[in-house]
Amino acid sequence: MLATRTLLSKQTLTAVSHQPACFVHQGEYGYWGNTKVAVVFSGCGWWDGSDVHEGVYTMYHLSRNGARFRTFAPNQQQMQVMDHMKKQPSSGENRNMMIESARFIHGQGKRQMQDLSTLDVNSFDAVIFPGGHGIVKNLSTFMKDGKDCKLHNDVERVLKEFHRSRKPIGLASMAPVLACRVLPSIEVTMGYERDESTRWGNWPQTNMVQAVKGMGARHVVPYVDEKNKVVSTPSFMWETDYHYHYIFDGVGNMVKHVMRLSSKKE
Amino acid sequence: MLATRTLLSKQTLTAVSHQPACFVHQGEYGYWGNTKVAVVFSGCGWWDGSDVHEGVYTMYHLSRNGARFRTFAPNQQQMQVMDHMKKQPSSGENRNMMIESARFIHGQGKRQMQDLSTLDVNSFDAVIFPGGHGIVKNLSTFMKDGKDCKLHNDVERVLKEFHRSRKPIGLASMAPVLACRVLPSIEVTMGYERDESTRWGNWPQTNMVQAVKGMGARHVVPYVDEKNKVVSTPSFMWETDYHYHYIFDGVGNMVKHVMRLSSKKE
Repeated sequence: MLATRTLLSKQTLTAVSHQPACFVHQGEYGYWGNTKVAVVFSGCGWWDGSDVHEGVYTMYHLSRNGARFRTFAPNQQQMQVMDHMKKQPSSGENRNMMIESARFIHGQGKRQMQDLSTLDVNSFDAVIFPGGHGIVKNLSTFMKDGKDCKLHNDVERVLKEFHRSRKPIGLASMAPVLACRVLPSIEVTMGYERDESTRWGNWPQTNMVQAVKGMGARHVVPYVDEKNKVVSTPSFMWETDYHYHYIFDGVGNMVKHVMRLSSKKE
Repeated sequence: MLATRTLLSKQTLTAVSHQPACFVHQGEYGYWGNTKVAVVFSGCGWWDGSDVHEGVYTMYHLSRNGARFRTFAPNQQQMQVMDHMKKQPSSGENRNMMIESARFIHGQGKRQMQDLSTLDVNSFDAVIFPGGHGIVKNLSTFMKDGKDCKLHNDVERVLKEFHRSRKPIGLASMAPVLACRVLPSIEVTMGYERDESTRWGNWPQTNMVQAVKGMGARHVVPYVDEKNKVVSTPSFMWETDYHYHYIFDGVGNMVKHVMRLSSKKE
């Protein structure tokens, strides 16, 4: 059966038998094995919750780099349920963010999806928000109020507490909207500042860039705000329906910088 | 803005501007740019549909290796909707496989999720089934009939047509059950043959191995049945709630062998 397991991973046997990879692992930027990361979801699906690619890539990169992570979502109804075929709301359907977000998770107990209200900043070294329209639909009132939006209470609390504690915050695609609303004068990226379409993908949502600027953020290069420890990646703000590996790379870079900043001594 | 895009991928600018990566790409096993792959889903979530990790990893590896792919699911109700927190069925809920599977997809038109009944073997070089309990719950009667199960009509048609056409078939986690039921004497893997629990993960579903043996399949190393062009990976048959990157590697190897067999001249 050895070769069977080899298919799962060439490193599996070694890692399972001998190497406590999730506790001591040398990543590109150092040892991250003791880094504990909270990942915040808002459902399962890019039109009404967390994007499945951004959520899965975030978990993959944390796993690959040996970080320990826990997952959280508000135990509340989504704003709406979207029919992802028709791209319009499904009438008469309700879904709970925490229950739907649990579709990302194979674990039990503390490794199950947990209620965001229980997220304690003291238990973690960093927090990451994968993107998806759940960011603006479920975690804030952005759809109604734009740049003057209010955030979900626990989201606001979590962002402020991690920032105040000098712990890094990772943000994919639309998620910078959340941080820009409650953290003063941070620097983020949401991709291109002007709409552009190419054969390979589009940047159709540059109005979002104007929104975060309106909130007082600087929309800039570099995408790592070292001072505020805020890392952002445009992800599906670059609208592609094919080149998923670019999204994967962007999320991977975001995760690595979050890890690096977690272990940075000050 | 260049560095912003750099975060998305160091190769993005080059690829978008100059290199038609999805058409001509040299992968580990050769040029796969002309390989067209159909990926079959059964919902969105591991307890009642397609596993989000296995689905996303499959699409990622196809994208990374420059293959072209289209996605399909039956336009029919799921057997059930599972509450992924409580691990029990949600009462009174119905979901459509094709609509839920569309949560994996950012595309429009032919790059949207398509009805499985329209999958034409002549348009593709290979087919891949990501795993998840949807395999046994939605695409077959395995939950009721075990090794004597019937397959969804289109699933049976697709598997037989690809096999008859000497086109490779990729299968993750539980998906070998489908192929073993309708293709005679193939070789597959579903992981370990005996239950085993470790700190790092478990092999709790070895009864499934007995089931595929009961269908006439050989459960073997190697996991690549070169003769029948059937490639399988145990994936979440190894029950881990943490080490997602091993699942990622297994799916990646499966995809690569499917690609290699697609381009193999006979």
